[in-house]
Amino acid sequence: MEMKRLGRQTVRLGHPVSVVSFANVGGKLEGHGPLAEHFDERNDDSFFGQKTWEKAESIMQQHAVQHALKKGGLQAEDLDYILAGDLLNQCIGSSFGLRDFGIPFYGLYGACSTMGESLALASLLIDGGFAHLAAAVTSSHYCTAERQYRMPVPYGNQRTPTAQWTATASGCCILGQQGDGPYITHVTCGRIVDMGITDPNNMGAAMAPAAYNTLAALFRETDTTPADYDLIVTGDLGALGHDIVCDLFAKDGINMDERYTDCGLLLFDRKKQDMHAGGSGCGCSAAVLNGYLLNGMREKRWNRLLFAPTGALLSPTSSFQGESIPAICHAVVFSNAKGDL
Amino acid sequence: MEMKRLGRQTVRLGHPVSVVSFANVGGKLEGHGPLAEHFDERNDDSFFGQKTWEKAESIMQQHAVQHALKKGGLQAEDLDYILAGDLLNQCIGSSFGLRDFGIPFYGLYGACSTMGESLALASLLIDGGFAHLAAAVTSSHYCTAERQYRMPVPYGNQRTPTAQWTATASGCCILGQQGDGPYITHVTCGRIVDMGITDPNNMGAAMAPAAYNTLAALFRETDTTPADYDLIVTGDLGALGHDIVCDLFAKDGINMDERYTDCGLLLFDRKKQDMHAGGSGCGCSAAVLNGYLLNGMREKRWNRLLFAPTGALLSPTSSFQGESIPAICHAVVFSNAKGDL
Repeated sequence: MEMKRLGRQTVRLGHPVSVVSFANVGGKLEGHGPLAEHFDERNDDSFFGQKTWEKAESIMQQHAVQHALKKGGLQAEDLDYILAGDLLNQCIGSSFGLRDFGIPFYGLYGACSTMGESLALASLLIDGGFAHLAAAVTSSHYCTAERQYRMPVPYGNQRTPTAQWTATASGCCILGQQGDGPYITHVTCGRIVDMGITDPNNMGAAMAPAAYNTLAALFRETDTTPADYDLIVTGDLGALGHDIVCDLFAKDGINMDERYTDCGLLLFDRKKQDMHAGGSGCGCSAAVLNGYLLNGMREKRWNRLLFAPTGALLSPTSSFQGESIPAICHAVVFSNAKGDL
Repeated sequence: MEMKRLGRQTVRLGHPVSVVSFANVGGKLEGHGPLAEHFDERNDDSFFGQKTWEKAESIMQQHAVQHALKKGGLQAEDLDYILAGDLLNQCIGSSFGLRDFGIPFYGLYGACSTMGESLALASLLIDGGFAHLAAAVTSSHYCTAERQYRMPVPYGNQRTPTAQWTATASGCCILGQQGDGPYITHVTCGRIVDMGITDPNNMGAAMAPAAYNTLAALFRETDTTPADYDLIVTGDLGALGHDIVCDLFAKDGINMDERYTDCGLLLFDRKKQDMHAGGSGCGCSAAVLNGYLLNGMREKRWNRLLFAPTGALLSPTSSFQGESIPAICHAVVFSNAKGDL
């Protein structure tokens, strides 16, 4: 059998997999930020009409899928797989949000890399001949993450300057064997990278080495450089992590320059909205991709996009036990050119 | 492109994927139970030499992978992917247990169905031409699960008659394009099934409908009946869930008879070891498969095995909020006959 691997981490798909439809949902801060016009649904109520924030997060995932299905003229029965996960303990955002669709379901845990992981596996399932259509979904919610990982929300604890703001948002991308693009051409699977960082208020620093590891593997294995992409976007490294990635590449003589940015820097206006180091959470990269970025590709603003969200694979328990923060980054290449393999 | 789907949920692999190596690790109760001789490592110390039970669980996963690599004459570098998950919040059993291997990693959350989900996705990645070798790993630990989901362990709370006992165990299965079998021939992806059960001390009842749903889909889509398999094994339904599955099939006129059992009934001696309804946890089906069951297939005790672990997709938070328990079941068919597609 022909092997589609270019190296240790990168797969070149046998056939380009097309984006068929995409949609996103955002909360109040997200919906009033710089990307306001790129949301399919914006809701100023952090409960989304539910009794708890956890149920609100499930509703966001459900709505993101519903919007994506509707925009694509599809029914739930048309999807062969749905791949999803989130930050909540036992990923209940996904299991409760998606239970009523009846779509064959593979649950994932990639922390804030989940949008990358779900797109990667959905692409591979389609390219492998196992699915016509597959959806990738994830979410995060400021209030569910804050109380699970840090402090009760009403306590209003002070945040460190390196802290990021978990996005209240969800995104869904439906991929297919057929479609008018953008197309996914390459997928780079991350390895767990742990550089010994232990400060859970500085996720950018913990995750940047994972982003560097995966992006460096992708450049090496595809024989490309940053200049080959119109835009390179990490998931939620924020200001600090973004700069660390640039520094790590600079040591290799590679200039990431202005074509490299981070979803955590795009989602909020850091000056007006006081988000400290920027946005974070699975929903951050999911909402930015499935709105602003894919809209921009369809409008030919960018023709080749490298999307590489990172995840911090810690838990409050591991931090309490003195552990460092392992991280991972999953990358996907989108191109407007079908033959761009 | 040829589509390998037989129906809504089942894929028939294009080429049989071979079991290349497998191994398991068990704690004290598991290592002194009926399957004692089928463990690669047994440890009477619930801490496995670590300072916390969570670190012990990570060590179990690490050791399961190391044993499987060694038994297969392989190095970590030989594995193209590792797919893993566990029950701990943010799946730290996997991320900390596997971080030092440097193997491209896809993190999963399927609760106690994770051994089925990881085998399914590993098979599809290999059959799709994306990997030569891929490992599927999971674990659970009585003490980490008990204190996370229920009560502090030293509290010694009374358990209900329907309660099951979370296995302290881990299992790793390495699959490959080449090998002498047993072979995976079919994979059936589960859908989330929620029948409104709300008692978190009766997981068997919550998960049985998911097992029924996936097994019924597999029988229908492959045009087989229970009689076509030498052994059908669910993951950790325990005594109660096992009987509910039999009842559900009986209503369809299908007799599951004595060829159907459950890993939760095999791992412990319920009379001598007082496990109430039986064993549970991701590690239960992982340890039973990657020892007793695959050993039995290699010895031709069984030639066709249907392995179908189930997962309950709840969290303590969802139960506190009055939610019911969604469940899922992922099934994989093993055969000693390479041409058995």
